[in-house]
Amino acid sequence: MNDPQDGNPTDSTEPPEEGGRRGRGARPGGRDARRALRSGGGNKQRRYLDRKIPVFEILSEESLEIIEHNADVILEEIGIEFREDEEALGILKDAGCDVQGERVRFPKGFCRKVIQDNAPRTFTQHARNPERSVQIGGGATVFAPVYGPPFVHDLDGERRYATIADFENLVKLAYMSPNLHHSGGTVCEPVDIPVNKRHLDMVYSHIRYSDKPFMGSVTAPERAEDSINMAKIVFGADFVDNNTVMINLINANSPMTFDGTMLGALKTYARGNQACIVTPFILSGAMAPCTPAGVMAQTLAEGMAGITFAQLVHPGAPCIFGSFASSISMQSGAPTFGTPEPAMVLYAMAALVRRLGVPFRSGGGLCGSKVPDAQAAYEAAATLQPTVLAGVNFVLHSAGWLEGGLVSSFEKLLMDADQLGMLQVMAEGPDMSENGQAMDAIREVGPGQHFLGCAHTQANFESAFYRSNIADNNSYEQWLSEGSTDARGRANKMARKMLAEYVAPELDPAIDEALRDYIAKTKESMPDAFT
Amino acid sequence: MNDPQDGNPTDSTEPPEEGGRRGRGARPGGRDARRALRSGGGNKQRRYLDRKIPVFEILSEESLEIIEHNADVILEEIGIEFREDEEALGILKDAGCDVQGERVRFPKGFCRKVIQDNAPRTFTQHARNPERSVQIGGGATVFAPVYGPPFVHDLDGERRYATIADFENLVKLAYMSPNLHHSGGTVCEPVDIPVNKRHLDMVYSHIRYSDKPFMGSVTAPERAEDSINMAKIVFGADFVDNNTVMINLINANSPMTFDGTMLGALKTYARGNQACIVTPFILSGAMAPCTPAGVMAQTLAEGMAGITFAQLVHPGAPCIFGSFASSISMQSGAPTFGTPEPAMVLYAMAALVRRLGVPFRSGGGLCGSKVPDAQAAYEAAATLQPTVLAGVNFVLHSAGWLEGGLVSSFEKLLMDADQLGMLQVMAEGPDMSENGQAMDAIREVGPGQHFLGCAHTQANFESAFYRSNIADNNSYEQWLSEGSTDARGRANKMARKMLAEYVAPELDPAIDEALRDYIAKTKESMPDAFT
Repeated sequence: MNDPQDGNPTDSTEPPEEGGRRGRGARPGGRDARRALRSGGGNKQRRYLDRKIPVFEILSEESLEIIEHNADVILEEIGIEFREDEEALGILKDAGCDVQGERVRFPKGFCRKVIQDNAPRTFTQHARNPERSVQIGGGATVFAPVYGPPFVHDLDGERRYATIADFENLVKLAYMSPNLHHSGGTVCEPVDIPVNKRHLDMVYSHIRYSDKPFMGSVTAPERAEDSINMAKIVFGADFVDNNTVMINLINANSPMTFDGTMLGALKTYARGNQACIVTPFILSGAMAPCTPAGVMAQTLAEGMAGITFAQLVHPGAPCIFGSFASSISMQSGAPTFGTPEPAMVLYAMAALVRRLGVPFRSGGGLCGSKVPDAQAAYEAAATLQPTVLAGVNFVLHSAGWLEGGLVSSFEKLLMDADQLGMLQVMAEGPDMSENGQAMDAIREVGPGQHFLGCAHTQANFESAFYRSNIADNNSYEQWLSEGSTDARGRANKMARKMLAEYVAPELDPAIDEALRDYIAKTKESMPDAFT
Repeated sequence: MNDPQDGNPTDSTEPPEEGGRRGRGARPGGRDARRALRSGGGNKQRRYLDRKIPVFEILSEESLEIIEHNADVILEEIGIEFREDEEALGILKDAGCDVQGERVRFPKGFCRKVIQDNAPRTFTQHARNPERSVQIGGGATVFAPVYGPPFVHDLDGERRYATIADFENLVKLAYMSPNLHHSGGTVCEPVDIPVNKRHLDMVYSHIRYSDKPFMGSVTAPERAEDSINMAKIVFGADFVDNNTVMINLINANSPMTFDGTMLGALKTYARGNQACIVTPFILSGAMAPCTPAGVMAQTLAEGMAGITFAQLVHPGAPCIFGSFASSISMQSGAPTFGTPEPAMVLYAMAALVRRLGVPFRSGGGLCGSKVPDAQAAYEAAATLQPTVLAGVNFVLHSAGWLEGGLVSSFEKLLMDADQLGMLQVMAEGPDMSENGQAMDAIREVGPGQHFLGCAHTQANFESAFYRSNIADNNSYEQWLSEGSTDARGRANKMARKMLAEYVAPELDPAIDEALRDYIAKTKESMPDAFT
């Protein structure tokens, strides 16, 4: 189902094929219910972004070649450490790498060749609702919500540790947001559940409260196994063996290190044909040099090493090249967001990974602000705009990220999602059809008149302009009379309304019961752990 | 001093030449004082943006040609009205245009040829401080503050009619903001001064409280004359006759109409060799079709007609092609900002005007929000980012715009200006020098270590990252202990501090006295008018 580059490359913009989901016939009212959802649900889902506009290139050909050369030098001369994993070192040694202790040096050109010979350029991640399946790679961009925060900013304005109830609510909001294509993974850390069991509740929430594609657990190999087993209950074992139904976040320990935990999860998912995002996570100046060109070379080397390893473990395993790069404050050492240097890295990495030929993950609505204020919005926009213009394929953190990733914000999730909708329209580019050119309207109206009543405006007005559901464009007087609410207040109100109106997507009760059984048995099999 | 395309085209990125300002020797302490200002002023001014990164092109060559063809059809077949100005009609008729009543149709290819044969590709706008002179056109981008609002959002949080005291304070803040290159024009409407006299106080404020380049009055030909006369007192008559010291905003009455007031100001400035921004001001769906491609063709036709007229009035007159395009809300008819459709128009117009070969004005920190909240920031960013990526040359409204242009905000001026600084760094592109590549640092540090203490980080840390003066990146606990201030609150505090610390740039007392005399005499010569 995946498309190795030398086999059957498809940069197709066709929707991913349907089928393969177990129990489709068995689910009561499947097709009709889906139709009802489409028409009656009130939230017209957007299909994943399929760009019609060019990408923005920040580096010249010559500069791109310099970075590629530097990455090759890192791989060949400095090397990458693969820690706490003897099997990994054996695999790399057998493939011809120079392994000294845990340090692995790659022969010149080795990584690029392994990746280009094996890794799919694009692949489909299947959702349990086939209409929500997404293309990863090519001209597609898929928006997924924030990942990882231990805290939430709740709808009462409190900042506190996250719970599984928050997790479920964030999944519900992402499900209802037409501009989010993906349910994401750890939308917040449900710290009220033992650390060794919470992955079960998280995966279950994505399956139960959404029908969008989702992510699996990576915090231990056995948790990755659980994620795959639960997916098999939903999609069927054969389907999961042969198709990608989960995307999983494998961070490098930059600089130039992968640890045993992440390597274990990577091996499990790669062997199971599930997708891995191999992401150098870099606070520039700490985990990499403080100059963008240095970050680029190191990121390229680390990502290539990780994806090469995945291809050696399981040739053809779907991989996404990830890049997370922020600056740090020289006063406090705190990460900063929305500044120009990481945006440069983003644009450059998108181009470098395009040349490498695998899907690319980066960007998002990143910010350092404590509240969803102007700082949060400027900073989020300063990453979201480059995310789309650079042609990022998979966007984690595209909505809901606050306070440097420590906090998931319900309000910001909806505010960001509104921006994602605008960027998706932007990526469609202007309509250059005769109707779009509107010369008849210009002829009809003529100098000094207005276009409000002309036939062209009447015919096109409904769909002419993106309509924000957060922005207030009423008169000052009306805004005043309605309580002088700011964007945050309006998002708060909208989130409350959405959660009140939420209706779960249908799920075969037999599947639901099987999932609950699996979770109960797995939880019973071990004592709670909180660290 | 201007550069006609067929004469001495300079897309040079060299700083504009110094000299020509009257009384330079006479001004006490000129050079030394300037040096002191540079070193001791605490606000290190940035020179106008001089882009090193490519522009983003949204339209294909084929699409650009379609729009150009459609604009030609509008100019040739539909025509443009030049109203309430017999002289203008005569000039156009004499040049070979088809004039029927006030409707003017241009022969095929006429406008493009007149513009390309006469209008400068780039020119210098001189400031009274030669270090603040700016290049208009080519790879340069010049940021000027908001223009036109009758209201201000003051530092006590009140929204009220603007006064000349507000005007002065906005000029002071723009003067002190290192990322604003220009003092602008009507930074707010000082409605406490009679409408027929306030232009005198506005021009005086720009000269007295700033030394950055500024704009003149366009609301009547005699006010344009006053603006030029005051500039002559500062720069010397000879210098003003032969150099551009003012930029002036001439809006078309879209669709396809110029009125007598604007034509009068345009003629005055063009004959005086002062620059005109000819700007079709379009709320899409009202003054133009509701589709971006329709807005593009109409904008191109209107701008070409206006600049052609300026070149017929005074061949070689410096002109800037302007485009202001927003959408409207279909519920209320109110203009909306930060949506994707105007951004598409912006990108396309920048490319079309580059092909035409004159400087381009568009963009800014536009928003519809009533307060400097997340809506304001998202919307401002959604125009500011395209402004810089598209390669806009002159940016009005780049800081301080609120509530659809009805309100000038002190807080948002500083918040936007911070974003302008980031965009300016972005436009520098990544440093690809050996130091930027940082391979020695990567070799030195190696896998699993950190870069904080390495020699490269020590050497580069100070200048490595853009430092926002608005963003708070401290820990949550510290932020809490400091009063939980949001971005707006911090901008408010900063504005108060800046105004308290403001020191006026030096101005020869003789010049100051001459300006005051001119203003007093002109004011005495006519009764107050308030409409």
